[in-house]
Amino acid sequence: MSSWLDEVRWDAQGLVTAIAQDAHSQRILMVAYMNRESLQLTAQTGIAHYFSRSRQRLWKKGEASGHLQTVSELRLDCDGDVIVMQIAQAGGIACHTGRESCLYRKLVDEQWVVTDAVLKDPDAIYGGHTGH
Amino acid sequence: MSSWLDEVRWDAQGLVTAIAQDAHSQRILMVAYMNRESLQLTAQTGIAHYFSRSRQRLWKKGEASGHLQTVSELRLDCDGDVIVMQIAQAGGIACHTGRESCLYRKLVDEQWVVTDAVLKDPDAIYGGHTGH
Repeated sequence: MSSWLDEVRWDAQGLVTAIAQDAHSQRILMVAYMNRESLQLTAQTGIAHYFSRSRQRLWKKGEASGHLQTVSELRLDCDGDVIVMQIAQAGGIACHTGRESCLYRKLVDEQWVVTDAVLKDPDAIYGGHTGH
Repeated sequence: MSSWLDEVRWDAQGLVTAIAQDAHSQRILMVAYMNRESLQLTAQTGIAHYFSRSRQRLWKKGEASGHLQTVSELRLDCDGDVIVMQIAQAGGIACHTGRESCLYRKLVDEQWVVTDAVLKDPDAIYGGHTGH
């Protein structure tokens, strides 16, 4: 039991929100969840690990796509339920849609407008399987 | 019923995660939650509104502290359950602890180390009441 992990305020499902921010551009690339195991692995290995709520399992980001995230900093928020990571994104693609960032829609005149191009076809990334 | 609000994937409690990012420095200042009403008010007024889970009510950030957040951009993530706002933070203090950002703890050698100074005593901000 590591005490730094005990300071995290895990929710009823044992998760915290985890934000991946590009260490260079400071753009927010994705937001997902971590359980205790994934946060510990992230800190130990320096590679971002999440917990997939849809698949209910540990998820090493990039395990299918090769789009690994190398973590240079971990921060915890004031009430302990948010982690922010400074990362370097392999391939420059964080989103399963093949875009740099998952935040590719912007509100303009009461419409969500896509602002980012698809850099790589998801079929080419995942070989026909969707995923991160 | 505005269709852009229907594209948001509200959770079982009717909430989405909302991230406030400083439009100038790109630092992540805080992470909280919004319900439909607070997101609509944020878009309409250009001032960040959240939903306080602890108090179970609409929460205009800065209503007690004066530390309002002026919103210049709203983004939605790929699966629709995260909002990222570009904001200007009145008073330069987002955190209820009196710091610029709620992300004031950094992991160093398996310890969360405080990296940010308290800019204003919370008692002076809230007059003895804690809150945001």
